[in-house]
Amino acid sequence: MSSSFAGQKLCLTIFGQSHSEAIGMTLDGLPAGIPVDTDALQSFLNRRAPGRNDWSTPRREEDRPEFICGLRDGFTCGAPLTAIIHNTNTRPKDYSKLKITPRPGHADYTAELKFGGFQDFSGGGHFSGRLTAPLCVAGGLLKQALAARGVTVDARIAEIAGIRDEGAFDASVAEKPFPVVDDAAGERMLLAIQTARAEGDSVGGVVECVVRGLPAGIGSPMFDGLENQIARLVFAVPAVKGVEFGAGFEAARMRGSEHNDAFCVRDGRVETVTNHAGGILGGISNGMPLLFRAAVKPTPSIARAQQSVNLETLSEETLTVEGRHDPCIVPRAVPAIEAAAAIAVYDMII
Amino acid sequence: MSSSFAGQKLCLTIFGQSHSEAIGMTLDGLPAGIPVDTDALQSFLNRRAPGRNDWSTPRREEDRPEFICGLRDGFTCGAPLTAIIHNTNTRPKDYSKLKITPRPGHADYTAELKFGGFQDFSGGGHFSGRLTAPLCVAGGLLKQALAARGVTVDARIAEIAGIRDEGAFDASVAEKPFPVVDDAAGERMLLAIQTARAEGDSVGGVVECVVRGLPAGIGSPMFDGLENQIARLVFAVPAVKGVEFGAGFEAARMRGSEHNDAFCVRDGRVETVTNHAGGILGGISNGMPLLFRAAVKPTPSIARAQQSVNLETLSEETLTVEGRHDPCIVPRAVPAIEAAAAIAVYDMII
Amino acid sequence: MSSSFAGQKLCLTIFGQSHSEAIGMTLDGLPAGIPVDTDALQSFLNRRAPGRNDWSTPRREEDRPEFICGLRDGFTCGAPLTAIIHNTNTRPKDYSKLKITPRPGHADYTAELKFGGFQDFSGGGHFSGRLTAPLCVAGGLLKQALAARGVTVDARIAEIAGIRDEGAFDASVAEKPFPVVDDAAGERMLLAIQTARAEGDSVGGVVECVVRGLPAGIGSPMFDGLENQIARLVFAVPAVKGVEFGAGFEAARMRGSEHNDAFCVRDGRVETVTNHAGGILGGISNGMPLLFRAAVKPTPSIARAQQSVNLETLSEETLTVEGRHDPCIVPRAVPAIEAAAAIAVYDMII
Amino acid sequence: MSSSFAGQKLCLTIFGQSHSEAIGMTLDGLPAGIPVDTDALQSFLNRRAPGRNDWSTPRREEDRPEFICGLRDGFTCGAPLTAIIHNTNTRPKDYSKLKITPRPGHADYTAELKFGGFQDFSGGGHFSGRLTAPLCVAGGLLKQALAARGVTVDARIAEIAGIRDEGAFDASVAEKPFPVVDDAAGERMLLAIQTARAEGDSVGGVVECVVRGLPAGIGSPMFDGLENQIARLVFAVPAVKGVEFGAGFEAARMRGSEHNDAFCVRDGRVETVTNHAGGILGGISNGMPLLFRAAVKPTPSIARAQQSVNLETLSEETLTVEGRHDPCIVPRAVPAIEAAAAIAVYDMII
Repeated sequence: MSSSFAGQKLCLTIFGQSHSEAIGMTLDGLPAGIPVDTDALQSFLNRRAPGRNDWSTPRREEDRPEFICGLRDGFTCGAPLTAIIHNTNTRPKDYSKLKITPRPGHADYTAELKFGGFQDFSGGGHFSGRLTAPLCVAGGLLKQALAARGVTVDARIAEIAGIRDEGAFDASVAEKPFPVVDDAAGERMLLAIQTARAEGDSVGGVVECVVRGLPAGIGSPMFDGLENQIARLVFAVPAVKGVEFGAGFEAARMRGSEHNDAFCVRDGRVETVTNHAGGILGGISNGMPLLFRAAVKPTPSIARAQQSVNLETLSEETLTVEGRHDPCIVPRAVPAIEAAAAIAVYDMII
Repeated sequence: MSSSFAGQKLCLTIFGQSHSEAIGMTLDGLPAGIPVDTDALQSFLNRRAPGRNDWSTPRREEDRPEFICGLRDGFTCGAPLTAIIHNTNTRPKDYSKLKITPRPGHADYTAELKFGGFQDFSGGGHFSGRLTAPLCVAGGLLKQALAARGVTVDARIAEIAGIRDEGAFDASVAEKPFPVVDDAAGERMLLAIQTARAEGDSVGGVVECVVRGLPAGIGSPMFDGLENQIARLVFAVPAVKGVEFGAGFEAARMRGSEHNDAFCVRDGRVETVTNHAGGILGGISNGMPLLFRAAVKPTPSIARAQQSVNLETLSEETLTVEGRHDPCIVPRAVPAIEAAAAIAVYDMII
Repeated sequence: MSSSFAGQKLCLTIFGQSHSEAIGMTLDGLPAGIPVDTDALQSFLNRRAPGRNDWSTPRREEDRPEFICGLRDGFTCGAPLTAIIHNTNTRPKDYSKLKITPRPGHADYTAELKFGGFQDFSGGGHFSGRLTAPLCVAGGLLKQALAARGVTVDARIAEIAGIRDEGAFDASVAEKPFPVVDDAAGERMLLAIQTARAEGDSVGGVVECVVRGLPAGIGSPMFDGLENQIARLVFAVPAVKGVEFGAGFEAARMRGSEHNDAFCVRDGRVETVTNHAGGILGGISNGMPLLFRAAVKPTPSIARAQQSVNLETLSEETLTVEGRHDPCIVPRAVPAIEAAAAIAVYDMII
Repeated sequence: MSSSFAGQKLCLTIFGQSHSEAIGMTLDGLPAGIPVDTDALQSFLNRRAPGRNDWSTPRREEDRPEFICGLRDGFTCGAPLTAIIHNTNTRPKDYSKLKITPRPGHADYTAELKFGGFQDFSGGGHFSGRLTAPLCVAGGLLKQALAARGVTVDARIAEIAGIRDEGAFDASVAEKPFPVVDDAAGERMLLAIQTARAEGDSVGGVVECVVRGLPAGIGSPMFDGLENQIARLVFAVPAVKGVEFGAGFEAARMRGSEHNDAFCVRDGRVETVTNHAGGILGGISNGMPLLFRAAVKPTPSIARAQQSVNLETLSEETLTVEGRHDPCIVPRAVPAIEAAAAIAVYDMII
């Protein structure tokens, strides 16, 4: 098994290939009686959809999940919930050359090895970023279920091409078309994206996610802590190459006296003065906002010619990846990161 | 369950508290016939032991695992392998005040919430860094099993207090008393640790780990990829607050043309010119060295007075953590990170 | 999670309700390159389909699985394999009274309690025997994969209404419309079924399954042995109330000298003279045919008036279950039992 | 993994070989704050211990579990609970011939195949019935935790050598030295055991277990129902070859009108008039006593000469198993079956 996340309570399975008849997901273990707002879910999915803006690939289709079971009159019924999204816009392009000449930065080569020649290369197969759509279906549903418990999950672009967005943020930022606090920084990011595209190149960035309202005492030490589970799920989003909590790698450069979050009492509640721990101590929530960041590598599909190898002749070759590609997938990764966090947190909270 | 890692084949359980009669681990699912070199294992465990040097806490005891089952004539016999380490040096100190006034940066507060007053606070209980000893027993055994397959797992100190160690490294570096390539940088790190200690403070750092000899094609996309599993295990090491693979967070600042690792042919084998991917594409090994880094926060136990709260009176209090503590746990985290990586990789390779 | 079987390698999820838009299954963890013969699969599914004969409910529809992902050119591609079956023949009958007056022998009452009023009662919801269709899709595929390795899984009716079928059997029996060795016994069983139906009643029986060609040495002691896993899967077939291996409950009445299977050498291979162990010793296959039986209770839906309770008024009520129902589901359980066995065995053999 | 049961919440690992330094178990996932009565636990373990009576093997030692972690002041502390039992009475007997000439009815042959010559044959290794001691430690603890919730788990001898015990029973029967309701039947069973022993033979039987006080609504359909989980655990007890719930295999011979349990109202509660379902409908408890039976094969170790094979020469040989052995293990299986049931039920109830 590779595409099933068996958590404490939930078993989430993501299925489909980029160009198979459909992609989808099943959430097993969801309690009965959770209301599902399909309009709100669609709005969430639209944040991930391609082609929303000129910095993204041209719009092709809306991702409309079809719930084939698990719902009754708008509520979960206790049976597994399955949603599928039909792949209507698959082009009968020839992907067979990826089998012979793998694209740098993609999984073509490793998939060929692992699946012994049976990999579905079309559109990247099961490795495609398109599979974040069913991840977002699952996560979007669980975001709603969390919100009903007063827990919110919001992310934003923290950095693109080295340009940072600073300041606190909430859902109003997460839902912006370009989710940054500082729109001026956002403009500079967009310019960097456009420049990269004009140069046949791409850029990466960092997504920051915050979970608010999580009760203190959720999680576990050792292998099933909040950090372990969130990291496990966030690395399911293609292109993520790093995950850090609270001060993260910056903590490595701090003194203990600086990094330790002093406890304090605010409005009769125990809190911490700072939040370098990102809301997690010993794998367990401490009641402060849970905060983490994920590093997103630059889109591997670029217009420039790249060096690859011909796996049949074992000789080096120049490869040019065709088609139009997102010069930056960070904006579309934002809801996927929220989804991954929502799945991890919901599984621990029920 | 929180302290059991149920992987593809292995189920590893870590048990014990800092001051319980014993701590230990069980590895279930290990094939029969694996030779165990207990001397080599002891050498590995000694790398983790406290008190080896003057930058660490004073030596108290050697961690001597006792194998109570699972071995026969020096080979695994197919039954679960259990090793325990007796806690001989537990002092009957009074830890009850941690229940009322939690230490900043520790799990005292969150454990109290989660375990509803039944937590074993003595020495940090199950949250103690001491539990990395059984993790190292498991990882040390699996490092041997991996080595028999030509796979090596080595780590070093990549950074302490902002001072970096550069350059490639191998086992000879990993096994140094202070595992850095550049001993001059190491001297500066040691000075920074001593300075922090003199000031009643602590410092953090970064551990870098490399897995060599891993065949290409190991791993999976989505939830059970190499990144997911390694991250899940590495976050089991207390104080780790971030994990990144290959270029990691730096990838976020690179262009695609720069980050993509061009394929090439060397000695008749497919390799990549650079290794920004850290040996992983789509969650699957590509045959290049698997490389990752973990951020280790500064030791939360510091000599300075800190602000905390009295959970009974809900008033703020000043707390001074007594006893002697490592001003920097990064050197001792090095073998623990190797252990975590070895467990993740071995589970995927068998 | 309840409808996901996370085995050693496979994760099988069964989804859908009797009258939801579709039902289906996902097999995650299947190796790439397994050929799928959809015609042979359809033949297998037809063995389970209702309405094949006059002892069954009238024919409504063929169960035609639609593979929406995981296949490429007739081979598994390594990505999760998902098949759905559309529920075309759902009648908009009113099932709301089952919520108030549960049917004896059905899960109406327990589902109402567990799902707090959100259960999808229509046609039995997720508890319906219809869900054995996706189980048979999974099992039918794995039967093919096993056959390619020389392992066959065949079942037959061993008993209906106390009438036994004796003698050894193989696939030719399993594939009969009424799968018994002794057709005369089969005639008596059919007569018993018709009599029960005429009397507004139903009968139960026993299914016997044999797995041949399983190599010796497959399985594990303790919790993950062949018996544990097969039993776990076979109890997923609704109406199964008992599972026994080899001599089973009859072993309880035997002497050790009689029950122990003496080892012998036949054609240079180690075998046993008898097979009271059903091919399993210590949870591990011994190379003899793996043999087990499952007890199937009489169909709970009967035409006769039955005593139930009104859950709103907490008063006793007489209930008459409407519609036509199988007076005996044993024949249709035969392929479902084969499917369960194939899933358990395949998961252990890869 | 084979000796780890990863349930909904709990992960139970059983470790040790018959003659290793120690055997034991770890329960991970147990809530903090559960009181442990070690005297009551010892009484429970004594029910399993050998040598209590003249129908059993001569007394050698008491099984005294040593809790090495997970307890604090008599309560679980939230960390994994590990107990070990030292093997003090291991005799340095030569078991090497079992490697060459396997005992009929034992796992010697299958273990040799599976573990490729590295199996620990001494005393049966990990396959030994001795491993039910740690199973009983886990189950005994959880029986206490269940009792605190009003749930009792009791078993009795339902049949030995074809002689049945009839009538309802409770804890007072379960705790008898020879746990039967009808002592006259018990006398006949004892006589049958003595006769078998005198003839160098052994007898089997059936254990019946009842769980009372289980709230309605516990369990799940499909793979994680009460039947699935109980069966999975009960088959971990060596020598069990069949498991049936409620009417079990007898249900196969009943009419639906007879088998269906009519609902009724008693003292304002919904109950059923009969309990052929054994308290389970659709995998979920219905509030009636949960009832199941397990078939226990006759002890495979018998004094008579038996036919085996020499695995080196591939020739048939006569084998005589030395030492004294229980001519009937059914009485000692009674607490082990209770333990298995308690583990399954507790895991589902928390």
